[in-house]
Amino acid sequence: MNDKLLKYFARILPISDMEVQAIAETMSVKMFKKGSILLAEGQISTEAYFVLEGCVRQYFLVDGEEKTTNFFTDEQWVVSVNSFGLIPSTCFIDCCTDSLLVVGNRNKEEDLYRRFPNLESISRKVMENVFAGQQELMASYATDTPEQRYMKLLESRPDLFRRIPQYQIASYIGVKPESLSRIRKRISQKLK
Amino acid sequence: MNDKLLKYFARILPISDMEVQAIAETMSVKMFKKGSILLAEGQISTEAYFVLEGCVRQYFLVDGEEKTTNFFTDEQWVVSVNSFGLIPSTCFIDCCTDSLLVVGNRNKEEDLYRRFPNLESISRKVMENVFAGQQELMASYATDTPEQRYMKLLESRPDLFRRIPQYQIASYIGVKPESLSRIRKRISQKLK
Repeated sequence: MNDKLLKYFARILPISDMEVQAIAETMSVKMFKKGSILLAEGQISTEAYFVLEGCVRQYFLVDGEEKTTNFFTDEQWVVSVNSFGLIPSTCFIDCCTDSLLVVGNRNKEEDLYRRFPNLESISRKVMENVFAGQQELMASYATDTPEQRYMKLLESRPDLFRRIPQYQIASYIGVKPESLSRIRKRISQKLK
Repeated sequence: MNDKLLKYFARILPISDMEVQAIAETMSVKMFKKGSILLAEGQISTEAYFVLEGCVRQYFLVDGEEKTTNFFTDEQWVVSVNSFGLIPSTCFIDCCTDSLLVVGNRNKEEDLYRRFPNLESISRKVMENVFAGQQELMASYATDTPEQRYMKLLESRPDLFRRIPQYQIASYIGVKPESLSRIRKRISQKLK
């Protein structure tokens, strides 16, 4: 099992050797090629992913056009739960770059929590964290202009700009690629 | 303790009499007047709410203008977590109508989970459900037109239209009140 995930968990709550062993038996580390689709529209999500290296993207297909809503990079969780029921996904999740991911399976996890309540505490806190991230994103959608969204992304996640194509950045901030060029020009003039 | 909350929990996992007792000691039921502010921008959220009756709203103040992002009604949770740290809220949460709410306190809850791991399982599942709702809302923001958002709200939550003023509906679907009138006119013509 990869050290990064165990260290991430241990920052939330201390974990025992037995728990480490159980995590290693439940989750697996896999390399995915750029372009791999982890979840397609209409599929039922049964897995969660923890990004060790690379970049994972969430997007929707609207009238044949991709609308990118999120990027997940180092130490971020890619979770797609649809209420308590098993409702087909409305989004796609794919790898923007070659990505090394920890893969967790929903059913195996439930068994893990029954055996180790401490790991359920960690899972609850992870869910709270993932939810907080989603709330922040939602707030940004509701209140920021595309230019503000661009600036926030540039400040908080400059690494993204090296890794992913411009049209995906444009889609994420909610504009056409042509408008992104104008926004970039305006910002670079301001920064001079 | 109100029956509605206990029944809600019991639908997720069976709960014992001791657990019911512990929940009753940890959470309280309170009546809030219309207009009560549960959380203001800049405050640190320490409470979660479960709506028994009424309607709670989340909004942001952008250049002096309210941007409504969510309404919470019967059996919905109002949760505002900001990552693991204690980060001041960027949104407001208020009561659109007189509202009867179960109030949970974050610190007391942590103690409850230590004593009753079963309640932590319920809490994790509640968080997953709340997160799923947020994901759905996010998807709608990213992919729907204001008219589509209006139709979805009308179909899924017709009760809201009796309870809250038009300008809040307009803000929620992302248009000015004047545009909402036009959207309503278009839709009523289509439905004829």
